[in-house]
Amino acid sequence: MFSPLIDELMSSLRCLPGVGPKSAQRMALHLLERDRVGAERLARSLHKAIEGVGRCRRCRTLTEQELCGICRNERRDPGLLCVVETPADVLAIEQAGTYQGKYFVLLGHLSPIDGVGPEDIGIDQLLQLLQQEPVTEVILATNPTVEGEATAFYISERAKNLNVTVSRIAHGVPLGGELEFIDGGTLAHAFSSRRSL
Amino acid sequence: MFSPLIDELMSSLRCLPGVGPKSAQRMALHLLERDRVGAERLARSLHKAIEGVGRCRRCRTLTEQELCGICRNERRDPGLLCVVETPADVLAIEQAGTYQGKYFVLLGHLSPIDGVGPEDIGIDQLLQLLQQEPVTEVILATNPTVEGEATAFYISERAKNLNVTVSRIAHGVPLGGELEFIDGGTLAHAFSSRRSL
Ligand SMILES: [Zn+2]
Ligand SMILES: [Zn+2]
Repeated sequence: MFSPLIDELMSSLRCLPGVGPKSAQRMALHLLERDRVGAERLARSLHKAIEGVGRCRRCRTLTEQELCGICRNERRDPGLLCVVETPADVLAIEQAGTYQGKYFVLLGHLSPIDGVGPEDIGIDQLLQLLQQEPVTEVILATNPTVEGEATAFYISERAKNLNVTVSRIAHGVPLGGELEFIDGGTLAHAFSSRRSL
Repeated sequence: MFSPLIDELMSSLRCLPGVGPKSAQRMALHLLERDRVGAERLARSLHKAIEGVGRCRRCRTLTEQELCGICRNERRDPGLLCVVETPADVLAIEQAGTYQGKYFVLLGHLSPIDGVGPEDIGIDQLLQLLQQEPVTEVILATNPTVEGEATAFYISERAKNLNVTVSRIAHGVPLGGELEFIDGGTLAHAFSSRRSL
């Protein structure tokens, strides 16, 4: 509309999740009109992150180092290993701020229909790690979806003969959540997983 | 959290309007996990736009050329000149798709309290343009705010002795807008600007 370079910028901004044509327009004009320093910094950060960020050799989360900050941190309990699907899950748990163990990131979940088997989500690497490290408990924190549950079940089966406790995080009504706004699946799970007091 | 490069990327993404810490996190992880090609393209587009995009010499909108596409377009009516505050306003009017004249972008509005006077928003350039070009009508499309109205009034006064019709776009209840959801100021304006049928 204005010019090829602005059109291209608007179109490129659409790669950001949740950014539609209107937001992309607003962002492009905002940057060009009011924050060229921020835009240049963003361009550099994107470039540096793409060039530099790979996977942690041990836990497979995103990092530019060979071992991520959590794997290198000697104050983290090496006896606890939390298995999650994505680096975003690591971030969410870290921000909750109570977990003090280490992680293993599957980078997905089992999905036979899409041809994703155990080898694609690093199960061998996970089992190897359980044998090499002094892990006493594996906490399965895959998502409460069909695939996440199947993945958790598969890992618990494979870990059975490895002298390690396998646990699953609890699912149910979120704290502070009002029952009337909780989806039916969650409510049904909360009932079937009820505990006697 | 993960690594300095990812933290820096998350922080840089905050320069985008409407992007808080949670969205920045989601965007950074999405790009690194799933769309590095898009991220690299965004970095390049940002850099090229910042380097290349300046102001149109005639109408002052954003463009990488000396004259923007609209100013260069000989099928646009040179008798109509629409005065707006920002390049985003040009885009909004172009997207409505009915206006066929040309533009002049003030890049702001009069605001004595902030020290923004006529010379800061290109009024001299606008008046010069009215004398040099075959403009028969100036359409004032500044925002319906105190400053936008004052700016429109100031321009209409200055243009009085220039043999040109000066008009103001209509303001009121948006088409399809339901009265109960319209703010009081707009409703009051709609009443005071009512026309007999
Ligand atoms: Zn790691
Ligand atoms: Zn122009």
